[in-house]
Amino acid sequence: MSFADLHRTGSPLLLPNAWDSASAAVLVSHGFPAIGTTSLGVAAAAGVPEGAGATRDQTVALARRLVRLPGHRSVDIEGGFTDDPAAVGELGAELAALGVSGVNIEDGREDGRLTAPRHQQELIAALTSAAPGLFVNARTDTAWLRTGEDPLARVRAYEEAGADGVFVPGLTDEAAIAAVVAAVAVPVNVLFSPAGPPPARLAELGVRRISCGSLLFRAALHAVVRTADAVATGAPVPPVPSYADVQALSTPHGVR
Amino acid sequence: MSFADLHRTGSPLLLPNAWDSASAAVLVSHGFPAIGTTSLGVAAAAGVPEGAGATRDQTVALARRLVRLPGHRSVDIEGGFTDDPAAVGELGAELAALGVSGVNIEDGREDGRLTAPRHQQELIAALTSAAPGLFVNARTDTAWLRTGEDPLARVRAYEEAGADGVFVPGLTDEAAIAAVVAAVAVPVNVLFSPAGPPPARLAELGVRRISCGSLLFRAALHAVVRTADAVATGAPVPPVPSYADVQALSTPHGVR
Repeated sequence: MSFADLHRTGSPLLLPNAWDSASAAVLVSHGFPAIGTTSLGVAAAAGVPEGAGATRDQTVALARRLVRLPGHRSVDIEGGFTDDPAAVGELGAELAALGVSGVNIEDGREDGRLTAPRHQQELIAALTSAAPGLFVNARTDTAWLRTGEDPLARVRAYEEAGADGVFVPGLTDEAAIAAVVAAVAVPVNVLFSPAGPPPARLAELGVRRISCGSLLFRAALHAVVRTADAVATGAPVPPVPSYADVQALSTPHGVR
Repeated sequence: MSFADLHRTGSPLLLPNAWDSASAAVLVSHGFPAIGTTSLGVAAAAGVPEGAGATRDQTVALARRLVRLPGHRSVDIEGGFTDDPAAVGELGAELAALGVSGVNIEDGREDGRLTAPRHQQELIAALTSAAPGLFVNARTDTAWLRTGEDPLARVRAYEEAGADGVFVPGLTDEAAIAAVVAAVAVPVNVLFSPAGPPPARLAELGVRRISCGSLLFRAALHAVVRTADAVATGAPVPPVPSYADVQALSTPHGVR
């Protein structure tokens, strides 16, 4: 099934987000048909600041590793790592040539502002033009950055520019989610939040993709500290996969 | 306190093992004074096979990032990534120059055999000679690889070659652990195992370092899958650190 076809009304794509080969491999081997990436995780794993364009190299290197896994990959390219539409298009073409199925491009910038809608349309159009087969998910950070701007005009503008899907992270209100779904014909993606509707309710609202964002990465770090504490204090250690199970994750895809 | 001084009889060093900047940063910020690395984690995160020498570059790159964190780092260099003593010495000197406090070097090889004791002594001596301030922890895989060989002759030989500590992963029997402690004057390191004695008992047995090996890495992968499943099924998601907490981990050490 194509990546686009996984975005089904009534049965949304649950997209777990990985940050390295192991986290992606464990999710694929667990049966998830498509994997996203989390720019927070990629940046923190590499020890570089997120959202500052410093993770472009890490992002491409990660994509190169993830395409060895079966299934689909959607890559978080932050704001495109540059404001030059041609360079953003080149990045999209490079990722598509590697075998990546989709990208996320966001309008939030490091200073907490959004790009001008017309400029963001140019970045989106550059991607769809340079990489026609790539699923371009256009993210608007109106809710995430609390800019006060209405997301509906943004998602309509991005759909008009050729986006294959739109994404408004930070929306947890049902009416606001339904309004975004009603505003566009393309699939709507929301970020899972424990404070928001559960996946079954999001499906009813017409959402076609549910992302995990940095949730799994944060859960991993929590487990690291909790397990180290358990060892230190002599408390029972939670169950973990065996050494052999984990070793097997990298072996079939281990050729550099 | 020096890294060597953290190896105290009666109050062993608990060494949690990281595989990337984020896992190290979260452990340091949690208060652990020293961090090890796990070669399984480093290899799996990079999608390359472990124990095949392919992770040398990743290991040095990781060390370069980890030295920005406060506290001590001990780096797992597998078997040295080469059988050439001079090249192993150069690696030790390179890591020491970066600010790494210690290394682990093992005698197990990819084919499941152990190196000849005399050869392993040469590798250890090359490290201590090229990097006099580096804490060289000599690991023997007699128990790990179930070679049937007595570890006592190995740890004595490695101590004689200049090792600052010895490590026998896979030992869970109290008498066997006590025998290793009795065999050498240098600190003895064991791998924590849920099947073995708890840390308080290991302290009584004279163990001076307890490593977590790949346990924390495996716990992280377990949390990834479990959390993704919870999202997919609408089950409660376990508590995780906030986005801001995680973002703060990379910011102070974010200069490349």
